[in-house]
Amino acid sequence: MNTFGNIYRLTSFGESHGPGIGGVIDGCPAGIELDTAFIQSELNRRKPGQSKITTPRKEDDEVQFLSGIYEGKTTGTPIGFIIWNKNQHSSDYDNMKSVYRPSHADYTYQTKYGIRDPRGGGRSSARETIARCVAGAIAKLALRQKGISIQAYTSQVGNIKLEGSYMDYDLGKVEDTAVRCPDAATAAEMEALIAEVKSKGDTIGGVITCVAKGVPVGLGEPVFGKLHAALGHAMLTINAVKGFEYGDGFDAALYRGSERNDRFFNDNGHINTRTNHSGGIQGGISNGQDIYFRVAFKSVATILMEQETVNMDGEDTILKARGRHDPCVLPRAVPIVESMTAMTLLDYLLLQKTRE
Amino acid sequence: MNTFGNIYRLTSFGESHGPGIGGVIDGCPAGIELDTAFIQSELNRRKPGQSKITTPRKEDDEVQFLSGIYEGKTTGTPIGFIIWNKNQHSSDYDNMKSVYRPSHADYTYQTKYGIRDPRGGGRSSARETIARCVAGAIAKLALRQKGISIQAYTSQVGNIKLEGSYMDYDLGKVEDTAVRCPDAATAAEMEALIAEVKSKGDTIGGVITCVAKGVPVGLGEPVFGKLHAALGHAMLTINAVKGFEYGDGFDAALYRGSERNDRFFNDNGHINTRTNHSGGIQGGISNGQDIYFRVAFKSVATILMEQETVNMDGEDTILKARGRHDPCVLPRAVPIVESMTAMTLLDYLLLQKTRE
Amino acid sequence: MNTFGNIYRLTSFGESHGPGIGGVIDGCPAGIELDTAFIQSELNRRKPGQSKITTPRKEDDEVQFLSGIYEGKTTGTPIGFIIWNKNQHSSDYDNMKSVYRPSHADYTYQTKYGIRDPRGGGRSSARETIARCVAGAIAKLALRQKGISIQAYTSQVGNIKLEGSYMDYDLGKVEDTAVRCPDAATAAEMEALIAEVKSKGDTIGGVITCVAKGVPVGLGEPVFGKLHAALGHAMLTINAVKGFEYGDGFDAALYRGSERNDRFFNDNGHINTRTNHSGGIQGGISNGQDIYFRVAFKSVATILMEQETVNMDGEDTILKARGRHDPCVLPRAVPIVESMTAMTLLDYLLLQKTRE
Amino acid sequence: MNTFGNIYRLTSFGESHGPGIGGVIDGCPAGIELDTAFIQSELNRRKPGQSKITTPRKEDDEVQFLSGIYEGKTTGTPIGFIIWNKNQHSSDYDNMKSVYRPSHADYTYQTKYGIRDPRGGGRSSARETIARCVAGAIAKLALRQKGISIQAYTSQVGNIKLEGSYMDYDLGKVEDTAVRCPDAATAAEMEALIAEVKSKGDTIGGVITCVAKGVPVGLGEPVFGKLHAALGHAMLTINAVKGFEYGDGFDAALYRGSERNDRFFNDNGHINTRTNHSGGIQGGISNGQDIYFRVAFKSVATILMEQETVNMDGEDTILKARGRHDPCVLPRAVPIVESMTAMTLLDYLLLQKTRE
Repeated sequence: MNTFGNIYRLTSFGESHGPGIGGVIDGCPAGIELDTAFIQSELNRRKPGQSKITTPRKEDDEVQFLSGIYEGKTTGTPIGFIIWNKNQHSSDYDNMKSVYRPSHADYTYQTKYGIRDPRGGGRSSARETIARCVAGAIAKLALRQKGISIQAYTSQVGNIKLEGSYMDYDLGKVEDTAVRCPDAATAAEMEALIAEVKSKGDTIGGVITCVAKGVPVGLGEPVFGKLHAALGHAMLTINAVKGFEYGDGFDAALYRGSERNDRFFNDNGHINTRTNHSGGIQGGISNGQDIYFRVAFKSVATILMEQETVNMDGEDTILKARGRHDPCVLPRAVPIVESMTAMTLLDYLLLQKTRE
Repeated sequence: MNTFGNIYRLTSFGESHGPGIGGVIDGCPAGIELDTAFIQSELNRRKPGQSKITTPRKEDDEVQFLSGIYEGKTTGTPIGFIIWNKNQHSSDYDNMKSVYRPSHADYTYQTKYGIRDPRGGGRSSARETIARCVAGAIAKLALRQKGISIQAYTSQVGNIKLEGSYMDYDLGKVEDTAVRCPDAATAAEMEALIAEVKSKGDTIGGVITCVAKGVPVGLGEPVFGKLHAALGHAMLTINAVKGFEYGDGFDAALYRGSERNDRFFNDNGHINTRTNHSGGIQGGISNGQDIYFRVAFKSVATILMEQETVNMDGEDTILKARGRHDPCVLPRAVPIVESMTAMTLLDYLLLQKTRE
Repeated sequence: MNTFGNIYRLTSFGESHGPGIGGVIDGCPAGIELDTAFIQSELNRRKPGQSKITTPRKEDDEVQFLSGIYEGKTTGTPIGFIIWNKNQHSSDYDNMKSVYRPSHADYTYQTKYGIRDPRGGGRSSARETIARCVAGAIAKLALRQKGISIQAYTSQVGNIKLEGSYMDYDLGKVEDTAVRCPDAATAAEMEALIAEVKSKGDTIGGVITCVAKGVPVGLGEPVFGKLHAALGHAMLTINAVKGFEYGDGFDAALYRGSERNDRFFNDNGHINTRTNHSGGIQGGISNGQDIYFRVAFKSVATILMEQETVNMDGEDTILKARGRHDPCVLPRAVPIVESMTAMTLLDYLLLQKTRE
Repeated sequence: MNTFGNIYRLTSFGESHGPGIGGVIDGCPAGIELDTAFIQSELNRRKPGQSKITTPRKEDDEVQFLSGIYEGKTTGTPIGFIIWNKNQHSSDYDNMKSVYRPSHADYTYQTKYGIRDPRGGGRSSARETIARCVAGAIAKLALRQKGISIQAYTSQVGNIKLEGSYMDYDLGKVEDTAVRCPDAATAAEMEALIAEVKSKGDTIGGVITCVAKGVPVGLGEPVFGKLHAALGHAMLTINAVKGFEYGDGFDAALYRGSERNDRFFNDNGHINTRTNHSGGIQGGISNGQDIYFRVAFKSVATILMEQETVNMDGEDTILKARGRHDPCVLPRAVPIVESMTAMTLLDYLLLQKTRE
């Protein structure tokens, strides 16, 4: 259950304040040039403290590869890797040892296992997602060879929404703004909201939109391995995610078949569709159109404000977290969403080879 | 990929117009009294033609058990079962053999496999969900012994929405209306809309809400086996589903941590939360509160109106489906949503035994 | 756990005296011509009562396909199938309901599940292997297209052993003798021994040797998916199997590296080995040489002689089975060994596609 | 495929001459006291150079735990670990880079992946088994709490065999001899043979016997998850293993049902069997008797003698390995056999909880 994927598989390990976070990637195709600069740049995108709008906590995350690589190329054997934890200020969390933080996993972990590592949330810390970014970066390298690209962006923060479709914006500009929104004006509004929330020690939620281009027809497995079910599952494993929709999503509830069926037509000799309400997937199988979906994030549970809660003995108490906090996880979550998408698509691309 | 679940596993088979739809349930606990009347009643809930608002196509669905049962009880060995197809009017589909129906899976299946059973959508037909209702009904019987109950209902059809939370309604009244909405007035509006849509040969989407009560603390597996990720995956495998959200869902994007964190308090000696924005799951693990989520369905793709499309040679053509159609899948999808929920919860309940 | 395989997967169901034995084959490549005559001939090879040397119990085993086939070809969707049980003389087993038969699974099933179907051994009956022969026959059809062939034969019955290697005999003659031994003289000795054993109501064990030719280099997965580990696992799931060895097998213990290393040499431009002590597999991966292995079977536990045992209350009693028995399972097990081999090789052939 | 197990799962990584060998253990029960001295002692048992009879190569193998442990106890989250490689004399292997060593995996890996790490066999090196010893040691700690113990020993080296059954010897004396044979006289013969073989730069095979005591009735899953099939699979994943047999094993072929059925009897109020030819497993499910089995090892392929072979261009050449070699892997393989047994039994013990 700490393993993700069928053929391209990540098994991850590690706690927030243990020695490190790492994983094993099994089933990676052999012969892929391991572009370590690219992998590091992906880790940097996920790193806190990249800009003044988010948490100032500096994580100096550098990946050490432990196996599966020879002379700069993947060998097809499992790729072990670790990102060592640094600056683990465990003492910051001393007062949380015996307190269940609201909307955190302290209580459920303690009840499930009868024991937990309380430092920084232990295994339930979002720091675990570093391992996903490593496996996702390698998956991106493999997908790039097949002409598949993935781009996510922040499309909503609180009540600030980027209107319209992903096609209305230049996704090449996502990295230009701290909040990772391709529209500079909307990004400025989002950043102002985040700054205001941050100043209060509070946090705010949002939505990430993700687009995959160049996915060939045929990925997806009937009936329990539908491609969008795999993508939805992948997204819902990311901390703080509360919802997933693809294509028309929840809006699809409002419309009629006559309005939203994607008509086929002969497009200069090949089959195309007039619209893409389906989000690039029909019957659970990719149809060659762009795949796009939206992922809802709740506000981060750690706030620097007094909160009512209980301790491990069930006694009422007041919690006030100290130090640093992350007012909005959205910008950092963009590369994580992309990573989970990349792993899923590569997994299904490899799986599809067994069907041909 | 035609298998669902880890411990309680359904492997399903069958096409719309083949001999039948069936499956094998592996990992079912031994000693469960097989209440065949209950199982049949669940199949009846899924059956088309239950009321005048939906498709008049009569499917006389009766399950035949093939193994795994002795003297009326499950034995722990695999439960094979089949529902024989009757009244397969394959000729109804003759004109669709060489035509790709818009927003159906004809094109993607044909491209993926190079071959397909074109009769009624073959494997991609929603008739496949019968197998889920059988496995779901048995899962419900097993969960009932543990005090876990599941109830879904239609909460939106087109633009007709049932306002408020599931706690505002008497879920015991869901079966009282044809559309399976617990509020009679809203149900009447929904049914009127469906009738109007049906009269035009068109279809309409909607939303189903599902609630599970009595789930103990501790179900869910870090980090890729989060309980809501499993539920989301389960829902997204149902035909026509476009989105999944749990707890606050997409609305969570709008709010701040200070507004939506679920505060713990000492509730007469046991730990409780003041609110349940989390939807009964924290850090991917059930916390003992009600689990609730929403599932978005698009309109059914089969409409009785002329549609532009192409044939298998890629040539432009016009499709007009004949005969019967289902204007709104929501009422019939209610037991399917419940079935997938039941299978998921039982699976995780069994999995949790290995953690204790 | 009633599922076998990774990509090409059989999930089987059924008890000896229930309605039937069947299964679901998932992951079968699309477009394979389903040669039903061949499949039936494989079932006939497994059938009891094929000759006077074995059990006279006539099983009229005919497979009914339920899905996954269109116009005589596989479609890539799951293939459901069933072989209906006939002539279930449950009453034959009435006296065994409350008695634990020695070296049968009655006691372990009862203790594991707290309930069991006592008729004919229920799920633990060797009749379950019919499902394997169906899935194995289809796998053979798929392998045949790739130039891979599989042949097993009886190489030992009791103390009658076929001397030498598989290369010393014409494996085309296996079906010429009732005992399925390619050497007529040895076959006659084996058959005489079986007749003698049968006349006493007793049973006798033996060994089956299996050879796979045409397997390409590269099948097998490090480190826990070694090809011979998969084959060994497959064989050990067959009822009454007590041992598995490949290549030199247990004899390898006797020899030195200098005696048994397989030297490579340039064989007219391609790499070959002087010997094949490795049995066609090195480091868990096929090397292009013939794969061969041996499977040990104990004597069938059902004998027509009085045996000391206990009943379900743990009281001492005497059991004497009535009616028919199978003095030697070897001849019938030959197609089962081949079937498990075919399923394993096809599974790994498909898996290997994901590595290329 | 670098993952072993269903519930208690080891995913391993690492090459002989890369940074290290490690793994991730998922599904380990929470709350187990991690006896690091015991774990280290198990690694020491596997270490080369423990005595003068085997390879003098000193591997200073110390495990570093990376996660899943808090205050000395397992937390139920994945346990990452690594054993760093030291003294990697890669240059020793320079002359093997382009040469395929006979009966090694160089050729099959190269052909399968198109690339390989040639240093010391890379992933195919037996050094990979260190990870198994770590996971096995932790499994032993968990099994010990349940009263289950495992003991393996060397029962054959070349033609020197320990006669009789495991019950004829005091298994507490296994560690008293360098070759890990419980009988001092036989051990001396084995050690003399190994010394002679070593002096010639040659290697020799053998057999390990393993016994598990205290296994409760009920472990094992019909039909493809039979307990002995899981054990056989586990053993066959160990480098150099050529065969597996349990209970009577290949000898069972020689005997009749009347001779070898295990009669039940009332043993002072509980059900027992007169004999244990079944090896503690009936119908794939443990029956409460001792589980015992034998594992055949071929001679190690690396010999210090000239051998005919080819290079990567397929040209004939002569190979002569330099330096150190391991004349007999049996003594070091004893803890590996135990480790795989422990992992398998713990996995099935946890799985059985889902059946109750």
